[in-house]
Amino acid sequence: MTEVSAAPRPRGRPRDADVDHRVMDAARTIYRERGWAGFNFGAIAKAARVSKDSLYRRFDSREDLLVAALTVPPADVQLDGHGDIRGRLIAMAAETLAGFALPDGMIMFRVFVESASNPELRDVYHSQVALPHIKNVRRAVSEAIADGTLPEITNPTVFIDALLGGLVMHVMVTPAHLRDQMMEKSDQFVRDHVDLLLRGAGYRGGDAD
Amino acid sequence: MTEVSAAPRPRGRPRDADVDHRVMDAARTIYRERGWAGFNFGAIAKAARVSKDSLYRRFDSREDLLVAALTVPPADVQLDGHGDIRGRLIAMAAETLAGFALPDGMIMFRVFVESASNPELRDVYHSQVALPHIKNVRRAVSEAIADGTLPEITNPTVFIDALLGGLVMHVMVTPAHLRDQMMEKSDQFVRDHVDLLLRGAGYRGGDAD
Repeated sequence: MTEVSAAPRPRGRPRDADVDHRVMDAARTIYRERGWAGFNFGAIAKAARVSKDSLYRRFDSREDLLVAALTVPPADVQLDGHGDIRGRLIAMAAETLAGFALPDGMIMFRVFVESASNPELRDVYHSQVALPHIKNVRRAVSEAIADGTLPEITNPTVFIDALLGGLVMHVMVTPAHLRDQMMEKSDQFVRDHVDLLLRGAGYRGGDAD
Repeated sequence: MTEVSAAPRPRGRPRDADVDHRVMDAARTIYRERGWAGFNFGAIAKAARVSKDSLYRRFDSREDLLVAALTVPPADVQLDGHGDIRGRLIAMAAETLAGFALPDGMIMFRVFVESASNPELRDVYHSQVALPHIKNVRRAVSEAIADGTLPEITNPTVFIDALLGGLVMHVMVTPAHLRDQMMEKSDQFVRDHVDLLLRGAGYRGGDAD
């Protein structure tokens, strides 16, 4: 943002704070439902009830706009802070599962699918979707190993892939019309899931029965 | 196929056995790359070098053709037969991972993504993609519980979702250009993955160190 200046703009309407929100909402909905092929400034401007000019002032490209609109659930979940690894993983897994189960949770899967045959989306997928997932969990696991509540895991990748993958698969095999029912039982699922993996990894803390 | 008749066809070329193969290949490639929006008889006929009539004789609808073309890796893997649950799960997981890592492995993810906003694909996804995955592993797990090599798992869904989900996630976080490298190390990954879950589930057999 090299154009930011302290001088007041001489004319034009004051910046509508609500516009950003409408644009992000429209971008997510259009990408989720139509994919990259339908993700263009015209359609998004129309759905957000803003001018195309207004979009071009905010974003240099479709990629820019998609990156801004991506809300990848695990990247939003902070695993920093205090508490036992079990409690932190359960909290992270619960929020992640809830995020995947929302309609916007599908966006992550769509970027993955489309990035396979679309070089424009490859970097977006890896930097914005795949890496944040992994890094967040990897940090928590490293800290638990450092403080002694987890033994040295010979293969942390296996633990992390199973942790996030189990949540992904749970959503993938649940039809959309049964998602509410799935979420009602999600606390138990998440606890059982985290405990299965912690026991497998040799967890020495409490309550992983 | 109510038109099938014992009477020899009076004329026309003999049925080309290679046509079926070309049609399936073309259908998979086109669905994988373009999705449901680009999956039409015209495009598939052209890519397979057959007439559209020839497709209409074989398939009643696009859904029919997609179902015929779907090869869902885990559904192809037989877990029946002899051997310890650990060996059988490792073999299943290795084949499943290899299937996901192929370009056609993306088809499963695409049907999932598109079925979320496309009622025509919902049944296809659930009957042809999600259920075969789950049923196959569930059967093996039930047998292992019956023969005593696995304890009664309080939540078999958790075990199965983590088993298949870990494989899915391993592929999802590996960029396409690193898939060959991933597959070179896949034997170790698969053993560590299955062993993590078996230990977590209280496996009583050998070699899950």
